[in-house]
Amino acid sequence: MVKEIQTVDVNLIRKVILPRSLHSHKGNYGRVLLIGGCYPYGGAILMAARSCVYSGAGLVTVATERDNITALHAQLPEAMAFDIEECPLLEAQLAGAEVIVIGPGLGESDLAREVFTSVLSAVRSSQVLIIDGSALTLLAEKLDLVNSFAGQMILTPHQKEWERLSGLAVEDQLVEANLQALKQFPQGSILIAKRYQTQILQLGQTPRQITIGGPYQATGGMGDTLAGMIAGFVGQFKNDRLDAVSAAVYAHSAIARELSQTNYVTLPSQIAEQIPVFMRSILP
Amino acid sequence: MVKEIQTVDVNLIRKVILPRSLHSHKGNYGRVLLIGGCYPYGGAILMAARSCVYSGAGLVTVATERDNITALHAQLPEAMAFDIEECPLLEAQLAGAEVIVIGPGLGESDLAREVFTSVLSAVRSSQVLIIDGSALTLLAEKLDLVNSFAGQMILTPHQKEWERLSGLAVEDQLVEANLQALKQFPQGSILIAKRYQTQILQLGQTPRQITIGGPYQATGGMGDTLAGMIAGFVGQFKNDRLDAVSAAVYAHSAIARELSQTNYVTLPSQIAEQIPVFMRSILP
Amino acid sequence: MVKEIQTVDVNLIRKVILPRSLHSHKGNYGRVLLIGGCYPYGGAILMAARSCVYSGAGLVTVATERDNITALHAQLPEAMAFDIEECPLLEAQLAGAEVIVIGPGLGESDLAREVFTSVLSAVRSSQVLIIDGSALTLLAEKLDLVNSFAGQMILTPHQKEWERLSGLAVEDQLVEANLQALKQFPQGSILIAKRYQTQILQLGQTPRQITIGGPYQATGGMGDTLAGMIAGFVGQFKNDRLDAVSAAVYAHSAIARELSQTNYVTLPSQIAEQIPVFMRSILP
Amino acid sequence: MVKEIQTVDVNLIRKVILPRSLHSHKGNYGRVLLIGGCYPYGGAILMAARSCVYSGAGLVTVATERDNITALHAQLPEAMAFDIEECPLLEAQLAGAEVIVIGPGLGESDLAREVFTSVLSAVRSSQVLIIDGSALTLLAEKLDLVNSFAGQMILTPHQKEWERLSGLAVEDQLVEANLQALKQFPQGSILIAKRYQTQILQLGQTPRQITIGGPYQATGGMGDTLAGMIAGFVGQFKNDRLDAVSAAVYAHSAIARELSQTNYVTLPSQIAEQIPVFMRSILP
Repeated sequence: MVKEIQTVDVNLIRKVILPRSLHSHKGNYGRVLLIGGCYPYGGAILMAARSCVYSGAGLVTVATERDNITALHAQLPEAMAFDIEECPLLEAQLAGAEVIVIGPGLGESDLAREVFTSVLSAVRSSQVLIIDGSALTLLAEKLDLVNSFAGQMILTPHQKEWERLSGLAVEDQLVEANLQALKQFPQGSILIAKRYQTQILQLGQTPRQITIGGPYQATGGMGDTLAGMIAGFVGQFKNDRLDAVSAAVYAHSAIARELSQTNYVTLPSQIAEQIPVFMRSILP
Repeated sequence: MVKEIQTVDVNLIRKVILPRSLHSHKGNYGRVLLIGGCYPYGGAILMAARSCVYSGAGLVTVATERDNITALHAQLPEAMAFDIEECPLLEAQLAGAEVIVIGPGLGESDLAREVFTSVLSAVRSSQVLIIDGSALTLLAEKLDLVNSFAGQMILTPHQKEWERLSGLAVEDQLVEANLQALKQFPQGSILIAKRYQTQILQLGQTPRQITIGGPYQATGGMGDTLAGMIAGFVGQFKNDRLDAVSAAVYAHSAIARELSQTNYVTLPSQIAEQIPVFMRSILP
Repeated sequence: MVKEIQTVDVNLIRKVILPRSLHSHKGNYGRVLLIGGCYPYGGAILMAARSCVYSGAGLVTVATERDNITALHAQLPEAMAFDIEECPLLEAQLAGAEVIVIGPGLGESDLAREVFTSVLSAVRSSQVLIIDGSALTLLAEKLDLVNSFAGQMILTPHQKEWERLSGLAVEDQLVEANLQALKQFPQGSILIAKRYQTQILQLGQTPRQITIGGPYQATGGMGDTLAGMIAGFVGQFKNDRLDAVSAAVYAHSAIARELSQTNYVTLPSQIAEQIPVFMRSILP
Repeated sequence: MVKEIQTVDVNLIRKVILPRSLHSHKGNYGRVLLIGGCYPYGGAILMAARSCVYSGAGLVTVATERDNITALHAQLPEAMAFDIEECPLLEAQLAGAEVIVIGPGLGESDLAREVFTSVLSAVRSSQVLIIDGSALTLLAEKLDLVNSFAGQMILTPHQKEWERLSGLAVEDQLVEANLQALKQFPQGSILIAKRYQTQILQLGQTPRQITIGGPYQATGGMGDTLAGMIAGFVGQFKNDRLDAVSAAVYAHSAIARELSQTNYVTLPSQIAEQIPVFMRSILP
């Protein structure tokens, strides 16, 4: 059965990115906790945090290895950062966050597994959990722990990660099959199946797809940047989560497309800097 | 009784930001000491220091945790920096500073409390003391120690911090009530009540308010940036401190407003870079 | 006998820098491993890595001293980085890389020699090995170890390094003599003889030369930047390696030439940032 | 007796900043060693090194505290850097340098004194020694050690430093008196007396003065930036050292003047970035 697929376009993003309320403050725009950046992948969480801050998240905190904090602050003083191995701080931040991103540069070490399990046990039903990068591989081993996470999870696999997680070979990752595979995840989970023309899927919703973006985005760190943007958008645009996620995916590729007019390859650092400009251009 | 409220506008700022005297040198533009940036809030003092330097302060020194100095120098070699735990250096710098900012990213740890108390005991009557961020919370516990600080203190609370400090609920923080609450602080203290249309209050003076700025400023680090600007302005514009403070608050929001023409959210790093340009635009 | 020499020009580079395939991903654009940056030459590998990432390499990993990783991530979160002394990681990365650059800031310490020898023993016939900087001096002592590296090696000496390696005095490094000297290296090795009008030589191919570039490039780090670009180009443009190398050398000087219209000296950091723009300008 | 004073202007700088020879390489543009940046003044040497690199020096090496190297490389990978406490490296670099700058952020600690004395004993007659910042204060105690440094020394004091060094009160530092005071220094020493309309003096030469620049330069780090520029100019423009120094001083203020058209205060980092642009604008 061929399903109708909705193309995410600028009209959808116009519904999401609205003028901010005059009397709002940073507390209204999301407390985001990003977890990752373990050696030797320290840069990944820096890119995710940067794009999250530049997306307009109210308060961004990073849990990463202590050695990574200096590099973060040198380029992004706007984010708080603490040592991922400090359990009490991690617990406190997990308790206070509205949106949690786990995975950019997390790796698959013993520490990574331990942190991942702690996060899964700490998440409350009011929190959004974005699972990215190596955390998707860890999730494949722990699917039983997320049974109760209805309506909370956002998965952002690229094709190989989705293959490991869903069992679907890359060439079989069509919308219909991906929706079928989504059934093994908690109800209401949102899947960002990253690929040429990325799919945004949620059971019970019309499947969505973006038709912009291109191979100028094929460079390391692009996914980390997207994960940070999704967190930033979900944290501040609360009317409809699927719309917020779709807007983030669209914005990410729209910015890259714009940069590709003058750049052969579009780098994560460049994309992050353009986020506030792109978002402003959407306002009436 | 409804008091008259003066709107801070560009005419006031034109009285403050004047051409520099030809024969002046950096010693004429303020020795500023900024204290804070304790783990996990290292970035806060970097943003305050950056905006202070870019405001034109003559000499900027930062007391922060040793681990934070590399990140500071990587982006702001213009500031000196030393380990907040080195008592002799802290004492020497406290003795030499004209303007002291305590609070951005200071936290409420034992170390923070100890440093805060040391600073309060060291301050001399010729120095300006700007209390920001978590130091406002520490101040609430130590109000007796500042009794003698007539005409020296500048408080920069956001609404929740002012609530803790003054006892006034957020919804009651109107000009009249805020002025009343100011009476429990040393005579001549200046209150920056940060909010939509920030108030700038000093007993005996017409209350002031800015009417520019907006929710594009609702992001982490905005207050740290303002604290640094206030220090920079107070350090170099010495004719009238209330005017200097008002000009800093106005400039901060005016820069954000200008950036918001092209940016959905205005980030601290962007604002800092625009300070010299904005200040130049005010000159005849 | 005077050989015909081909001038590398924009027509050649147009054959190399082609639009990317729509369905490609970062795995198609080269896994590059860069090795170097040992104390006190930490900056060299940062410049090489930066130019490699900005050239569009799919995945860039840096092996350097642990103390150097923070500086790298502070300006280039897009690259992964690990401690050059961690043998298991080095082995794993050597196994997975398609292109290996050894030399920028490697030095000639015992550690440098040990790493160099490990790399030579680990390289497989499908990998490209770019030898730059001090590794060229180390190579002079170990020529016997590369006997079997037919069609894999790219050498990027400046005149003094080539003198040490080939035995040819600087004034004798003409095309004919350089080709003759190349015979002592594995068959198919490509020589970038860096100088005014750099030569690009491979036995059995028409010698090539660039006729652009100039003394505005005479500054420290220029060679590290070129090494990173060559790796980036070789990693993604796989039709003809000699063409890819020639395009990288040409692009490096063309960007410098363009920058020299407005800059007396053209710095490595400036060149890296312009790479994606230059490459885009080549597309039809 | 009133001496004639020559105003340094753009005609002089046009004689200095010439097109580079086509066949030149980085070895022709000066090996510069900069020494300083000791805690808590780490940033000073970063600013000096940055302006030196951006002036076009061929090879720039920094001796600073180990903790400071990461911050340096994060923003200036073009410079090499080593631990100021490593005597063998310091000796080797002192032996190889053509221009040595000592002082930016050196401080007056025991280590500073020890390094200063080592440098004075190591300098050879072919080397240029630029003494800046706190090293000028150290020099006041060690004048006997520089007796033999004829034609090698460049002193860059601000008014207070010159007072300590020469015994002349600030208000007495007129050209005639400064020339008189210069007699106690080795023959041929060049004095940059930094002030409003900086003087450039050498016994036996017409005194020079710049008439540009202004109080927008009155900010911390401006002197460090100038010291790095002087080193860069002296290292590459070898026809006439007094002219090279004059050109550096002029360029520094000319860039600041240009920036001051749009900036209230001109920061060291901004000035450094404009050096290559300014120098290019001087070429015919």
